[in-house]
Amino acid sequence: MIETQAQARAADAADPLRVFRDRFALPDGVIYLDGNSLGPLPRATRGRLDAALRGEWGDGLIRSWNDADWIAAPARIGGKIARLIGAAANEVVAADSTSVNLFKLLSAAVRARPGRGVILTEAGNFPTDLYIAQGVAESIPGAEVRALPREEVFDAIDSDVAVVMLTHVHYKTAARWDMAEITARAHAAGALMLWDLSHSAGAVAVDLRACDADLAVGCGYKYLNGGPGAPAFLFVAQPLQDGLSSPLSGWMGHASAFDFSDDYQPADGIQRFLCGTPPVLGLTALEVGVDIALEADMADLARKSAALWNLFAARIDVRLAGYGFELISPRDPAARGSHISLSHPEGYRIMQALIARGVIGDFRDPDVLRFGLTPLYLGHEDVWRAVEILHSVMRDEAWRKQAERAPGRVT
Amino acid sequence: MIETQAQARAADAADPLRVFRDRFALPDGVIYLDGNSLGPLPRATRGRLDAALRGEWGDGLIRSWNDADWIAAPARIGGKIARLIGAAANEVVAADSTSVNLFKLLSAAVRARPGRGVILTEAGNFPTDLYIAQGVAESIPGAEVRALPREEVFDAIDSDVAVVMLTHVHYKTAARWDMAEITARAHAAGALMLWDLSHSAGAVAVDLRACDADLAVGCGYKYLNGGPGAPAFLFVAQPLQDGLSSPLSGWMGHASAFDFSDDYQPADGIQRFLCGTPPVLGLTALEVGVDIALEADMADLARKSAALWNLFAARIDVRLAGYGFELISPRDPAARGSHISLSHPEGYRIMQALIARGVIGDFRDPDVLRFGLTPLYLGHEDVWRAVEILHSVMRDEAWRKQAERAPGRVT
Repeated sequence: MIETQAQARAADAADPLRVFRDRFALPDGVIYLDGNSLGPLPRATRGRLDAALRGEWGDGLIRSWNDADWIAAPARIGGKIARLIGAAANEVVAADSTSVNLFKLLSAAVRARPGRGVILTEAGNFPTDLYIAQGVAESIPGAEVRALPREEVFDAIDSDVAVVMLTHVHYKTAARWDMAEITARAHAAGALMLWDLSHSAGAVAVDLRACDADLAVGCGYKYLNGGPGAPAFLFVAQPLQDGLSSPLSGWMGHASAFDFSDDYQPADGIQRFLCGTPPVLGLTALEVGVDIALEADMADLARKSAALWNLFAARIDVRLAGYGFELISPRDPAARGSHISLSHPEGYRIMQALIARGVIGDFRDPDVLRFGLTPLYLGHEDVWRAVEILHSVMRDEAWRKQAERAPGRVT
Repeated sequence: MIETQAQARAADAADPLRVFRDRFALPDGVIYLDGNSLGPLPRATRGRLDAALRGEWGDGLIRSWNDADWIAAPARIGGKIARLIGAAANEVVAADSTSVNLFKLLSAAVRARPGRGVILTEAGNFPTDLYIAQGVAESIPGAEVRALPREEVFDAIDSDVAVVMLTHVHYKTAARWDMAEITARAHAAGALMLWDLSHSAGAVAVDLRACDADLAVGCGYKYLNGGPGAPAFLFVAQPLQDGLSSPLSGWMGHASAFDFSDDYQPADGIQRFLCGTPPVLGLTALEVGVDIALEADMADLARKSAALWNLFAARIDVRLAGYGFELISPRDPAARGSHISLSHPEGYRIMQALIARGVIGDFRDPDVLRFGLTPLYLGHEDVWRAVEILHSVMRDEAWRKQAERAPGRVT
């Protein structure tokens, strides 16, 4: 139990993950609690990307599709991400955006369950998940989106449901679904299960194999530290792959892309879920982030994530009682992800004041302050100091005079 | 008329575009005739991308979505590409891959023409165009792809056709459609017209407005020199925008993405054709290439492109008569793009030998040698020397002993 800043510092000194902090170029004077929205720059990325520009693109030119193996990057990096989420190497590819990958898999799933049209999800799920589901439903006759309050989802998984689509860790509250339980229920009802791992992969333990998941997507620019708008990833359980088809039947998903034949013939296996030409520069940066995550022990990450979270919550209890904050994330470590969210009626202005003092979290409508406690590069003392600074913001009423509310930031 | 190498050199000295050559990091000892597949590295890209990594991502972190205006990059860069293709700034966005953009626009077009189901295109069009069209057709009840020989396309534009999809400059032969003529015919038949500008934008004159085009897509990594797998672009004529909807209804196409509402409401205008989070690193590199293209005079580019082509063809006639080559690109400048293609039964091995001698073109099944004659960074003497080296390859039978044929290269 950490009760002093010195104890927080001592916990950092004993932290097996401490070495990873120096792998990231975090700016001086900033405590960065928004890695759940955009992970920071790994120090290795600049050199790696410059080598790709100078050597691979500049000197290698078109030859680098083979010589630098650009063509295999989606499968190679997917195979690495697979190790972070309990999947086999041939079940994951890195490609496109999370939204585009959701469209591929949701469309394929609904079409694979004829006679059922429901995409069941949670109201208040991350917006693009809901929007893409609506787009899929409008594209397929008889399909519909059913978005229910969180507590009603489990019981609503019935024989009308083609696919259950849930975000493992909720972007706003950090509430975490019991992946095995929901997946089993979906299968019992004859539905497919699609997990969005955007707020999980690289942050909390995920074992897709162990819970027999069917489909998943996830984000490259949050806990995988792949850079702004990094390519996303998708997972399809191997036994399902050849029975599903992506509506986005682009040439990279063709069985023999370089035969240049006129008729689409999907590749065997996970490759059929690729579409256009791979975004090499984005993939190159993503691979650096993924490689770092692979060096860390996932059990260490999960343990430290829980410890940072508990410390933050305990310090909020001690230092911010009476200031009107409400914890909206679950306290049970098994029921939450790696970020912590508080609500406050003045949340937007408080977050602006906090950012001005060097603690970067983010704000979500209508009143949520969100803090990412990423175990790879944050320490216990960072968390300690962040709460102290939040306390100073609340104590100092000057923040109330800050500028008018401006439009929200990007996730 | 250039008849000596000295005259070729003199033509380069008088070339108003000559200054652009130094803007690209072309490797020594290489004559790069494959910019139609992957454009070379602009010298400015390394510095610009490193600044984005270090300053925008590293120091700015999440704040750069606003402070570095990452969020506006698709529209900003789209607005620049618009100037290269005769469109208005609010008619183009840079996003996703060409394949994904084709899916968005083809789906929207077919759904906008109820009672018509035909996507009319050319057999032998670029494969991903055909594959995506097939995916769209399978997604929409009653839709079908009709892929006809080139010479039958025009007359087949009838009242069953929802959308005509053609590639302005053919990837293999460089044959160029008369954009105004085909578009007018499509409109007369009540169909929409979609142009793939992948082999045109930045290379030949394109004026979408003047020919009243409806829809277009194009590639960022060929003549726009945006880097391997660069983001692509899409165009929707302004009057059509609010009547079309993309099935890929991701959050970046939402009217108020940062309200995080549960229901999709498409943005007004071109923004509704965005989908997921913008690929910032890829867009950053693309913008460098587009900015260079904008500095060049399009009329100069078109004139020089034709001149390089004519010189290449004339030198082939003089130097390679009797060696079994056949010109498969049209000789009429108005009927062709910026690359030139020859067929030869030993084409694959000849191209391998040529690449080994520093002249990089590419090969397309079954027997096509393809040479991109990009006016921005190639000179008349490059073309002269390339044909001399091809002649030396043919004269020297040693190439016949080269390694067995390996799998084809990308794009």
